[in-house]
Amino acid sequence: MKLGRLNHIGIATPSIAESVAHFRGTMGATKIHEPFDLEAQGVKVCFVDTPTDSGMNGTQIELIEPLSDSSPIAGFLAKNPLGGQHHICFEVEDIEDARKWFEEQGKRILGPTRIGAHGTPIFFLHPKDMMGQLTEIMETPKEGAHWSN
Amino acid sequence: MKLGRLNHIGIATPSIAESVAHFRGTMGATKIHEPFDLEAQGVKVCFVDTPTDSGMNGTQIELIEPLSDSSPIAGFLAKNPLGGQHHICFEVEDIEDARKWFEEQGKRILGPTRIGAHGTPIFFLHPKDMMGQLTEIMETPKEGAHWSN
Repeated sequence: MKLGRLNHIGIATPSIAESVAHFRGTMGATKIHEPFDLEAQGVKVCFVDTPTDSGMNGTQIELIEPLSDSSPIAGFLAKNPLGGQHHICFEVEDIEDARKWFEEQGKRILGPTRIGAHGTPIFFLHPKDMMGQLTEIMETPKEGAHWSN
Repeated sequence: MKLGRLNHIGIATPSIAESVAHFRGTMGATKIHEPFDLEAQGVKVCFVDTPTDSGMNGTQIELIEPLSDSSPIAGFLAKNPLGGQHHICFEVEDIEDARKWFEEQGKRILGPTRIGAHGTPIFFLHPKDMMGQLTEIMETPKEGAHWSN
């Protein structure tokens, strides 16, 4: 497998509104997308773009807020009430090839491949098999594809 | 202040050698720099490059391993023995302007401005003032400058 783009880093927050105010007001972010619910994953999501030398196509910050107490990130926030870094997400060209690759490496995959926040297939890998990092693998959006956001 | 490049995400690890094997062997990283000691901060450091659409100038992974039990990241690893996400680092044009900006915002700055892993001035902001994220602010390397790595 070849390392793909670091698409985003996922940051859990008790309040997307407060995190947006933080990134806009304190950190100076200028391109912040509209928040939306990703009900299949039990979270509200909001992407913050970061600049590169050639534009605003850098690694995104993905703010995630639980939709309910049974959200997968509710436990994380119970331990980290202010929020904090939750996962990292790398792109791959083909999600099925990637799934097979990680299975062959003996890495535990958390649940089925499903549609992620960018509207392309994703899966998560167990942090205990990934040097402590909850790692999301996401298929690169095809050019011209509809994005969910 | 204007949001700068997400220069790197810092990942603490009990072993840079194991993390390099993970990123090279499992994740498919191809550009991994030589590790070096950053004694002023009590850590060994190793940068892993990630791709963008235009090259290998994406947000880097900064692997950090404690140089001793008194290293600032020793406590983090005691709580997270496998390692994990430790900090995020954004670039700014002028480190003194940025320091003044965050002071004006009432954000606690951890210690003096000092030289970081890329050979430019940096400082850290208290995670409790930054929505739970230990945040490093780093002056963008000037074109043609010597990099420490």
